[in-house]
Amino acid sequence: MTDQAAPAAAVLIIGDEILSGRTQDTNLNTIARFLASLGIDLLEARTVGDRQDQIVGALNALREAYDYVFTTGGIGPTHDDITADAVGAAFGVAVREHPEALAVLERRYPPGEFNAARRRMARIPEGGTLIANPVTDAPGFQIGNVFVMAGVPKIMEAMLQDVTPRLRTGAVIHVRNLKVTGVGEGAVAEVLRAAAVVRPGLSFGSYPFGFGGDGEVGTQLVIRGRDEAEVDLAEHDLSQELRSMGIDIAVT
Amino acid sequence: MTDQAAPAAAVLIIGDEILSGRTQDTNLNTIARFLASLGIDLLEARTVGDRQDQIVGALNALREAYDYVFTTGGIGPTHDDITADAVGAAFGVAVREHPEALAVLERRYPPGEFNAARRRMARIPEGGTLIANPVTDAPGFQIGNVFVMAGVPKIMEAMLQDVTPRLRTGAVIHVRNLKVTGVGEGAVAEVLRAAAVVRPGLSFGSYPFGFGGDGEVGTQLVIRGRDEAEVDLAEHDLSQELRSMGIDIAVT
Repeated sequence: MTDQAAPAAAVLIIGDEILSGRTQDTNLNTIARFLASLGIDLLEARTVGDRQDQIVGALNALREAYDYVFTTGGIGPTHDDITADAVGAAFGVAVREHPEALAVLERRYPPGEFNAARRRMARIPEGGTLIANPVTDAPGFQIGNVFVMAGVPKIMEAMLQDVTPRLRTGAVIHVRNLKVTGVGEGAVAEVLRAAAVVRPGLSFGSYPFGFGGDGEVGTQLVIRGRDEAEVDLAEHDLSQELRSMGIDIAVT
Repeated sequence: MTDQAAPAAAVLIIGDEILSGRTQDTNLNTIARFLASLGIDLLEARTVGDRQDQIVGALNALREAYDYVFTTGGIGPTHDDITADAVGAAFGVAVREHPEALAVLERRYPPGEFNAARRRMARIPEGGTLIANPVTDAPGFQIGNVFVMAGVPKIMEAMLQDVTPRLRTGAVIHVRNLKVTGVGEGAVAEVLRAAAVVRPGLSFGSYPFGFGGDGEVGTQLVIRGRDEAEVDLAEHDLSQELRSMGIDIAVT
């Protein structure tokens, strides 16, 4: 199984605004799709507030358990941006002004506007290397297997470009979607279970839709696996089985 | 400080579809806003896949650390719905058909359609009580301090209504938003830090906006605290200070 060789990753979302309900996080989904495209398995995500003990605890658990950890949030200029210090504490290293980060920020701001708060954004845990920020210049950083990125989605997404070449990739997971309309999950559950038993190397998911009251009700079946030929076979067999039961399906 | 008395909560999102990037989770945000309205502090969230060891590990860590844990996902009729069994394993109790759940499901489905898969949805860990599902009937359940709910957002949201009366509530956190346009976070960081030092009982957050390239750039300042009079005072003082610096603000 190529699964054995795929790198395993976790995401750590940092920010009171997510846990207070003020902000709907979208970074986890962006990173999930990014990692999927590289064949890296995202196995866990955590969200914590702007508290050093919480960040340190979660980060140390995740970086020990997974090949890569991606964090978002808390690297701006304000007092509630404590991620660099928390990451330094987690790794047991000092946090200092990074000359290259300082140079980048000095270029961005006119001398009168480059105040102490903005200068804080040049502070990086010792041993860290910068992650480029093509949107607002203030960099993220990598230390060990941890990639520390901004919380603003546009900036976070841009930073991923500089992260890509640093990652060991895996075989991509192939996905096939079967859309079953007019019947609920319960009507296809037994067929799906049988398919999963026959092909234990694949993952079979089932997601009902249409509870909003607007339009059709049905079930989306998802087949996932690294062996594309086997995924295609599973799709073929499952489609045939469902059609033989008189169930309408669309392959998407 | 009333903060001491506020219950603390965590959320556990269960589902491969979130970590694969297929689905953008919205349940965390819905639960976060629900808990905020009850004065319950949401302190952590985790997302794990449909794997029993992961669910058991995360659930046991969270239910030990927090007053309440809310889970979403994995309680449907298909083979990948393993939450009831995982919760039973976490609590060390058997999972059995719950007579009341069975009665609810028998009423919903015509005899010919009430198959083994659908009957699985009546299985609840011993000692659990049901959480009503007014959308599709298949219930969630509560066991100890853990509330197990559906992953489909419409159903999850409806289940929260039956959860509300079971929760100890806290003093609500009052929130004031100051929208600062035309200047970045770095320009207001020092003023904000000073305000936070003066009032350590409040939380001051800062969130830049406008990086999408469409329209105004600025910073949203958020003041949060359980003492409404102090939150109002902080808003007044911070507004005055920003205006004295010639910065445009709008209180929202």
